Amino acid sequence: MNAYRQLEERFRRIGAIEQAISVLHWDTAAIMPEGGAFARAEQLSTLRLIAHQHLVAPEVENLLAEAGASNRNLGEWQRANLREMRRRWLHAAAVPGELVEAESRACSECEAVWRRARLENDFAAVLPGLERILHIEREIGAVKGERLGTSPYEALAEQYEPGASVAVIDRLFDEIAAFLPDLIEDAVARQAAAPSANISGAFPIEAQRRLAMRLMEQIGFDFKHGRLDISAHPFCGGIPDDVRITTRYSEIDFARSLMGVLHETGHALYQRGLPAVWRLQPVGRARGMAMHESQSLLLEMQVCRSRAFLTYAAPLIREAFGGEGPEWEADALYRRQIRVRRGVIRVDADEVTYPAHVILRYRLERAMLAGDLDPSELPAAWAAAMRDMLGVAPDSDREGCLQDIHWYDGNWGYFPTYTLGALIAAQLFEAARRDLPDLVREITEGEFAGLIGWVRERVHLKGSLLSTPELVESATGRALGTASFERHLRDRYLA
Amino acid sequence: MNAYRQLEERFRRIGAIEQAISVLHWDTAAIMPEGGAFARAEQLSTLRLIAHQHLVAPEVENLLAEAGASNRNLGEWQRANLREMRRRWLHAAAVPGELVEAESRACSECEAVWRRARLENDFAAVLPGLERILHIEREIGAVKGERLGTSPYEALAEQYEPGASVAVIDRLFDEIAAFLPDLIEDAVARQAAAPSANISGAFPIEAQRRLAMRLMEQIGFDFKHGRLDISAHPFCGGIPDDVRITTRYSEIDFARSLMGVLHETGHALYQRGLPAVWRLQPVGRARGMAMHESQSLLLEMQVCRSRAFLTYAAPLIREAFGGEGPEWEADALYRRQIRVRRGVIRVDADEVTYPAHVILRYRLERAMLAGDLDPSELPAAWAAAMRDMLGVAPDSDREGCLQDIHWYDGNWGYFPTYTLGALIAAQLFEAARRDLPDLVREITEGEFAGLIGWVRERVHLKGSLLSTPELVESATGRALGTASFERHLRDRYLA
Repeated sequence: MNAYRQLEERFRRIGAIEQAISVLHWDTAAIMPEGGAFARAEQLSTLRLIAHQHLVAPEVENLLAEAGASNRNLGEWQRANLREMRRRWLHAAAVPGELVEAESRACSECEAVWRRARLENDFAAVLPGLERILHIEREIGAVKGERLGTSPYEALAEQYEPGASVAVIDRLFDEIAAFLPDLIEDAVARQAAAPSANISGAFPIEAQRRLAMRLMEQIGFDFKHGRLDISAHPFCGGIPDDVRITTRYSEIDFARSLMGVLHETGHALYQRGLPAVWRLQPVGRARGMAMHESQSLLLEMQVCRSRAFLTYAAPLIREAFGGEGPEWEADALYRRQIRVRRGVIRVDADEVTYPAHVILRYRLERAMLAGDLDPSELPAAWAAAMRDMLGVAPDSDREGCLQDIHWYDGNWGYFPTYTLGALIAAQLFEAARRDLPDLVREITEGEFAGLIGWVRERVHLKGSLLSTPELVESATGRALGTASFERHLRDRYLA
Repeated sequence: MNAYRQLEERFRRIGAIEQAISVLHWDTAAIMPEGGAFARAEQLSTLRLIAHQHLVAPEVENLLAEAGASNRNLGEWQRANLREMRRRWLHAAAVPGELVEAESRACSECEAVWRRARLENDFAAVLPGLERILHIEREIGAVKGERLGTSPYEALAEQYEPGASVAVIDRLFDEIAAFLPDLIEDAVARQAAAPSANISGAFPIEAQRRLAMRLMEQIGFDFKHGRLDISAHPFCGGIPDDVRITTRYSEIDFARSLMGVLHETGHALYQRGLPAVWRLQPVGRARGMAMHESQSLLLEMQVCRSRAFLTYAAPLIREAFGGEGPEWEADALYRRQIRVRRGVIRVDADEVTYPAHVILRYRLERAMLAGDLDPSELPAAWAAAMRDMLGVAPDSDREGCLQDIHWYDGNWGYFPTYTLGALIAAQLFEAARRDLPDLVREITEGEFAGLIGWVRERVHLKGSLLSTPELVESATGRALGTASFERHLRDRYLA
């Protein structure tokens, strides 16, 4: 068996272990009785350790070198697979074992402290933990950056978004920051002039679930290859052949869960649409977190919060809850789904203000990693940036720099993917409308096969064959920019 | 780290992988969408392969020898753990890889053919597959028997019931066969003289589920450490800290599912009661399938089909289904739960006729393995034995030698554990009544803590510390025999 084949064998096994981990992770979040937690942690850490050992076994480096030296014999997908194998191996092998262990320990300690600190609004309590993690992440960024030939920040961001470039992110985020404050101001003023009426009432959970499943199926989710369940923190888990979405229902607000389900359905369709012949191989995986987020936002923001979609969905929504009156009309439903508010909480933000939350975090995490911002100054810097970007400031750290888990759990470099995803989504939808002239009409009529087929062919079926920039350009005909996103916001909120 | 410690580390890891396999197996049976089957098979076979490789790695034999040579330094539990490690290693290492593979292939091929053959009542179709499996099992029995110092049949039975002895099984089964036919005849005649009225009606599944959970909880099942779900073939899965029972409901018959759930609850309490400090180690596992079956039969047959239990449960059952009238009284419910019928299907059999089904299969599988019965003669031999043991004969092979999956899936030597379990259950319950004079009154009042505490201390908490015969003797004060079982049958069915 040649070197490349041996690597495929090895990565196939790693892939199967990771699929098992993914299903167990879903089980933990969705249905495991609480008493199973300790044993589950042991199962997961054992499987993770075994997958890691397979990845960093001494023979892998030689196999990668050997396969690389004879890569003229490989096809396009195989060459890309080899590149992705090397990328995964680099990330796993670059960091010395003690540093991996130190990170893991620091993160679990800090995360526990953070949960209490957030509850008690006590940033000082978590500061030492945050400083320790920052120190460790800086080291990890340095050693990975040296191997990858990137800056430390890029090396960290690479873990979520392969090939992430600060030059590109800076340019895109600067462009957004330039138009966003005025746009927010205009949108808020315009909506204030025409307030939309709320729907109140009790929305039975079973009716919500049925409606969600009906819309999921209509859009293209195949329940032969997936499930919809409940968990405290909604997510899309499972594996491409068995995609498991979770949500959380509120009996007094159906739209939040429904839009959440449709968001996760975007992630799910991406998972499901990945190239089946490359299952379990690195090249068969989703391209990165920015592209993944683009798929959820394409469905939630571009499609399902549109007037066209709500025109289609309004009768189904009324039927599900027995709704009557003008507040159940498509236009009223639509206007409630596109409300803009200057808030301090990221996860509650609408699509217009969301980038402000992300850009703020991106700049602060870069400054901390570069040593330009001491973590002790984070609360003040956060409040100032918030005032600057959004014109509001949090009343407390709980609603400020303590609100997100990411930094306290070691996920540095993750935040940009949210907004990169929003940009990609807008650019994809614009391209789809260009390629599919009837698209908006189709959505109004509940036909999604055209759009899903379009994005499946151009994005899902490419797996990790291309880099993110290549993938965006091949799917939309243009390099990733902010123009489509800006046009989308102006069309929806200012037209 | 000394040899024994290294083995504990290794088996801890194997144990965690096997727990992951167990949860995934539950998921497959209970909730996986059908489209996930192919990927799940790959996950499970990968994890099984990894566990197997850990078990048969070249260093294990030396570690076992080294730890064995210095076992004076080990405590009682550690010595037993080492013995169980060696047992597991022997079973895994005894069989050459090609034979393992041949078995696995032959079984999956034959099982698929069997499913169709049973449906179409076509024994000839599955005969070649059965012959191939028989040939392979004979070889496996021979190589394992040589390593274990047992007969080939015992080596196969050892896989399910450690230390299984044909001399003991023969003696016990001969004793049963001597008294059973007359006992069946008397019980059937007596019940025919006093027929019991059926309950008919529709029993909503949600009401059945609530009743089952209420009784499970009352008996001692902790839903913080377990679940009750639905699957086509009811079983008890999961792991000791997260025990997952499944059942199958019929809207026209609540008792079958209820008694099934209580049966699985017995398995579950055993799992849950295994010694927590020995989790993931071989000595911390259940003693074997006979002991496991004894726990389910102790609860189902000895406790829950008793007049005492149904006196306690009758008002709850009436409440669950809004039942009224004499057919809902405890005595009527009880009499319906102890009906004896000469039937041809094992899984439908009552506790009186069940041993006949088992003894028949035990004798036939031994004869086939010994070469005394050619598989082509199985249908005729089956019908003859059935007539001889039970006085009935199947109309077709579908209701005869095609009814059970065991032989067609490579589980030779498994059948005796059902009846060994019934014997142990009767002997345990008799001992418990002797030790706990108020036991029957407690059951009548829905108090189970006394019994569960008794069996937990004497059986569950022993894990695999003792052999099955030692465990039975230490728990009941007597070697395993048939006297308690016979007394139980005579008391319940002939008194």
